Amino acid sequence: MNNLFIGVDLGTTATKAVLFTLKGDIVAQSSKGYELHRDGTGMAEEAPEDIYQALIETLHELSEKLSADDEVCAVSFSSQMHSLIAFDEFWQPLTRVITWADTRAVAYTEELKNSGLGHEIYSRTGTPIHPMAPLSKLLWLRHEQPVIFDDASHYLDLKGYLFWRLFGVNKIDLSIATGTGLFNIFEKKWDTGALDTTQVKLSQLPEVVSPYQMERGLKPEIAQQMGLPESTPFVWGAADGPLSNLGVNAIAPGVAAITIGTSGAIRVVTDKPGVDPKARTFTYALDEDHWVVGGPVNSGGDVFRWLRDNVYAGELDFDAITAETAKVPAGANGLIFHPYLGGERAPLWDANARGSFFGLNYTHGRAEMARAVLEGVMMNLYMVALSLTEVAGKLQRIQATGGFTNSQLWTQILADIFEQPINVPESREAGCLAAVVMAQKALGLVDSLDVISEMVGVSDTYQSHVETFATYRELTPIYIRLTRLFEEEYKNIADFQRK
Amino acid sequence: MNNLFIGVDLGTTATKAVLFTLKGDIVAQSSKGYELHRDGTGMAEEAPEDIYQALIETLHELSEKLSADDEVCAVSFSSQMHSLIAFDEFWQPLTRVITWADTRAVAYTEELKNSGLGHEIYSRTGTPIHPMAPLSKLLWLRHEQPVIFDDASHYLDLKGYLFWRLFGVNKIDLSIATGTGLFNIFEKKWDTGALDTTQVKLSQLPEVVSPYQMERGLKPEIAQQMGLPESTPFVWGAADGPLSNLGVNAIAPGVAAITIGTSGAIRVVTDKPGVDPKARTFTYALDEDHWVVGGPVNSGGDVFRWLRDNVYAGELDFDAITAETAKVPAGANGLIFHPYLGGERAPLWDANARGSFFGLNYTHGRAEMARAVLEGVMMNLYMVALSLTEVAGKLQRIQATGGFTNSQLWTQILADIFEQPINVPESREAGCLAAVVMAQKALGLVDSLDVISEMVGVSDTYQSHVETFATYRELTPIYIRLTRLFEEEYKNIADFQRK
Repeated sequence: MNNLFIGVDLGTTATKAVLFTLKGDIVAQSSKGYELHRDGTGMAEEAPEDIYQALIETLHELSEKLSADDEVCAVSFSSQMHSLIAFDEFWQPLTRVITWADTRAVAYTEELKNSGLGHEIYSRTGTPIHPMAPLSKLLWLRHEQPVIFDDASHYLDLKGYLFWRLFGVNKIDLSIATGTGLFNIFEKKWDTGALDTTQVKLSQLPEVVSPYQMERGLKPEIAQQMGLPESTPFVWGAADGPLSNLGVNAIAPGVAAITIGTSGAIRVVTDKPGVDPKARTFTYALDEDHWVVGGPVNSGGDVFRWLRDNVYAGELDFDAITAETAKVPAGANGLIFHPYLGGERAPLWDANARGSFFGLNYTHGRAEMARAVLEGVMMNLYMVALSLTEVAGKLQRIQATGGFTNSQLWTQILADIFEQPINVPESREAGCLAAVVMAQKALGLVDSLDVISEMVGVSDTYQSHVETFATYRELTPIYIRLTRLFEEEYKNIADFQRK
Repeated sequence: MNNLFIGVDLGTTATKAVLFTLKGDIVAQSSKGYELHRDGTGMAEEAPEDIYQALIETLHELSEKLSADDEVCAVSFSSQMHSLIAFDEFWQPLTRVITWADTRAVAYTEELKNSGLGHEIYSRTGTPIHPMAPLSKLLWLRHEQPVIFDDASHYLDLKGYLFWRLFGVNKIDLSIATGTGLFNIFEKKWDTGALDTTQVKLSQLPEVVSPYQMERGLKPEIAQQMGLPESTPFVWGAADGPLSNLGVNAIAPGVAAITIGTSGAIRVVTDKPGVDPKARTFTYALDEDHWVVGGPVNSGGDVFRWLRDNVYAGELDFDAITAETAKVPAGANGLIFHPYLGGERAPLWDANARGSFFGLNYTHGRAEMARAVLEGVMMNLYMVALSLTEVAGKLQRIQATGGFTNSQLWTQILADIFEQPINVPESREAGCLAAVVMAQKALGLVDSLDVISEMVGVSDTYQSHVETFATYRELTPIYIRLTRLFEEEYKNIADFQRK
């Protein structure tokens, strides 16, 4: 028999399922997209049924590729964080999936933040006070959708909803729970103060279970649709953020995972929960013994896309712009860019933050502006890293992933600003692979999550250049001090722009 | 007989001579360029002989156009300010004309400024402590050219040099004297403290005379070269800055002249000398009863040229960019530009100041950037105007000149930011005309300089729009507060850029 494993990633725009061998080699994969419903109000919702169907279909597609000798030992999950669905007493959905990207709770979030109560809750839950979090979404529901709020008997996240459909259970895994803003990461239970604030009762929330917990006994008709045996174990798995650390072999203490795609993040694992006194970072569980401290940033590839489409008016593509940029020396001849075009989460947590070019002189052209944009994105990540070290200690090693690693220049700039070697693991569907490794541990097939190190591919490593980081040692402090100066005027300019 | 008058403008790149009727109509004009010698050190010098020859040739060219009935009643002068030439005891030049544009004295200027002594000298002389001023140039000579400094028996400005060549006199007019940084504008004599600081003796400086003073008795061979009678009166006239106020009919108290060409200035006339406690403005005499308080700004058309050549990569010309800009609403959708690409004189007096875009969001494209550039140049002028009103009172009327008035959009933005009507006088060689009006007064042909109002052409007037200036009332204060925040980092970024 070939022991195979399926890792499922429940993403914001698609669900992807990947079939792996015991050793982590990819056998097959399947993906199914769905719509993120947006409008001008900040709404960002998904239809639960769309995602349920995507799950069934991707698993079905993989099951068709199984030979008679193959056995699926487990299906395990990586899921988007911070989602919320309300149900009535008969378990009928009262809302769609309100996703992390939904910003309608911004006013209630600000109020909570300004009251000081927000900081207290953060210091127990590790979830930044932000519209993304279910904590904020519940405040919004209570004020803006009181009929739904009064009628709601149960709340689940997206993955909890799917398990409820498949197995009829009312649960949430520890990892996802730590991203709700409602869970006390030190006492390992729902936080009484947070519940009081939202006026949600403990009975409305699901049981918190281990990410290694398994459900068995699929409903027969569903098992048939999937093409999997009813007895196939479904492992809860964890949230996509923490799992991405595992998936790039960054779970040893002090090893940071940096991801930059459209947006970005830095995350580092510690063995105990801890929070930042200045509230600049999140703390989410991967499992009971691995806590991921990190900062999500809005400013990533989207900023570079803005540069291409606006400053370059769409005349050059990314590669051509990067080639121009490579001709400009490190430090962009003294031009500094703050990349906060759409507000920023870590390290500022300021939705009013805006972008800027500072230090313009007559010698600066578009190539300097482009180089400053690349460097600004990396300096912002460096600021996040500084705040992480205060919670999780010095960064010993950095694993980098995401679209930006396709550019040698970008990755080199990262190495030079961080003054540390940057390893780029071979891309291997990290989230799904990590979910599968958790399943292997749940099944007792491996002793430790550390087996991941044998599964992720060979790394490219970028060494930092002494002569270049001397330059960044001068500019990065200016960058950081400017963020402190600018923040005084972010709200004023953002208010003007909203009119 | 036709009574005619010649106004001569001794500019930085050319000398221009214009022949006028008594009523200020132009009969003929002539211009002759010369080189401004620059190198990488900040040097900006002119050959005295070049300018002398340019004077002879332009006057000769005009004299050739005179008919038998014409009589030149006077030749009168408008001159560039802040120039310095050193002579030995035999009146041989030891230097070329060191012009206002020469920045080699920057280090000695900074030292003087930081010592506190600079502010004391400013508060008596009205000349900002700046490398442009002869005060700073003398400090530079003493330290960097000690042989010349020790050998120098006499110092003159460019116009003084020309009068010395023509008439053998050792003089300077009051207007030019007030721009040296060495002249006490309250006591109306050379400033003892300033002389002590430079270690220059009173005997080395020329006699200060009225701008209405006349010299007669050209050396015969020179008169012949010019084609003018030896008896033709030469009126000293004044400095080009103060004369430009007269030339655009802005000499009544509270009437401001705004000029924006490559760089720009705002100037307003008062009847007594006064200085700004915060040292943001200059005070120069036009004559004994007219004192021009103003601020010169670096940020004008040069900034827009940078935008065209860099952000627009030379793809669009000014008109096309202006057309794009006109489609963006006032306030550039909340994008703010500080135009200090080459440092700034008024209102910051900070050579380290640099440009910036602040408030960038994803909706901003090049058209917003262009609009922000136009608006930023005008907001900077508005800051200067605010500092002027502290010295000279409220601005009652604004006369605008310079290349920017060719753009209706630019001029309208100025009216909207200032919340005042803007008059654009018909262009009439304002500097030369003003010099001629001073000559007419010197000759007793007119009672008052106010006759200028009948000579300058009809104005276009731009009214400010209520709905637009409401926008600028929100943005301009943000612009101003940002300059205060930014100044903390200007020196750091400029130091980096100089490496």
